[in-house]
Amino acid sequence: MFITFEGIDGSGKSTQMRHLATWLQERGQAVETMRDPGGTQVAEQVRTLLLDPTSSLDNRTELFLFAAARAQLVAERIRPALQAGRVVLCDRFYDSTTAYQGGGRNTVPRAWLHSLHEQTTGGLMPTRTYLIDVPVEEAARRRRGESDDRMEQEAWAFHERVRTTYRSLAEEEPTRVCCIDGTQSPVQVQGAIRADLKAIWPSVGAGTPS
Amino acid sequence: MFITFEGIDGSGKSTQMRHLATWLQERGQAVETMRDPGGTQVAEQVRTLLLDPTSSLDNRTELFLFAAARAQLVAERIRPALQAGRVVLCDRFYDSTTAYQGGGRNTVPRAWLHSLHEQTTGGLMPTRTYLIDVPVEEAARRRRGESDDRMEQEAWAFHERVRTTYRSLAEEEPTRVCCIDGTQSPVQVQGAIRADLKAIWPSVGAGTPS
Repeated sequence: MFITFEGIDGSGKSTQMRHLATWLQERGQAVETMRDPGGTQVAEQVRTLLLDPTSSLDNRTELFLFAAARAQLVAERIRPALQAGRVVLCDRFYDSTTAYQGGGRNTVPRAWLHSLHEQTTGGLMPTRTYLIDVPVEEAARRRRGESDDRMEQEAWAFHERVRTTYRSLAEEEPTRVCCIDGTQSPVQVQGAIRADLKAIWPSVGAGTPS
Repeated sequence: MFITFEGIDGSGKSTQMRHLATWLQERGQAVETMRDPGGTQVAEQVRTLLLDPTSSLDNRTELFLFAAARAQLVAERIRPALQAGRVVLCDRFYDSTTAYQGGGRNTVPRAWLHSLHEQTTGGLMPTRTYLIDVPVEEAARRRRGESDDRMEQEAWAFHERVRTTYRSLAEEEPTRVCCIDGTQSPVQVQGAIRADLKAIWPSVGAGTPS
């Protein structure tokens, strides 16, 4: 069971992932949480390059740095954890590249981006992806007062394109991507995630506290 | 005029590039020399990750880090220099990825590697590539006493596959890749490079010291 969390910055996805991890652990599941880019020594170094607001990166450089970090995360942590029977929860995965470098920047043709995902992950796909969808203005309001990293500094129209791409992903892959209204309260969002997960994985909630 | 130098470590390609740069400058050419990976702030940081003998990199991570560094070098330095009418000499370029990550490691299918080059460079190809070909044992003998970086630490068979791939590139693309016998003296190798360059670019040597 490999579950990813997607959405624009300020959507609340990281918080939702942590709450779900706790809930799964309470149900006796061995859970590993990670973030992409990151999660390994080299991927964290690449993350620093990617998010540093002073980095001057060509769009293609950005794309391949994300791919490099993801390839390492898959090889070093995700595949071993899944093989050991653990539940893997990941904050962002390749849908982020489709949304940001694809929809946001249009760095490379969509078909080629798809082949890049295949080569990066060796074909590994999330079992389920929770897209926490919030309007760009709502996400910006929540983030007020926080300092922006290099991606967050992008213009409003960029984040609108990212959100639109995310929403179209949920329409194109409804059996994998579950779009959840992120304007609800955090408790309601978590409830929606748990309800969906129990529906596709009935034994996870069976005979244990709800 | 975009000229790249290729070969296994110890082939003498970096030395040959420097000598050619001097020769071109003496002929009034504006020359920029660079190395791949490297040549820009972020690409040099990526180079450090790639060559650090203590880095533990998945093969795909390695491939995409080289691509990231190359994309930045093309965007930030090679294209602007060519547009300004300068001669660009580069120590390694995408043939290195074909030889090392393709032939050496077989990380991804060859056809996909070709599409990765296209996306990385935006279709930019060297005008001429000098492959300085030396046997692996000769290169190892020359490098004796030097400390190995992460790529140089690879097994003998790896470097043999790299050399074989380089030589097949010269056969496949004879109008671009010029294979030069690197077992000759450095002066002879430089003479062969200059003779070839004068043949394809007659005005470079005209009316100036030979």
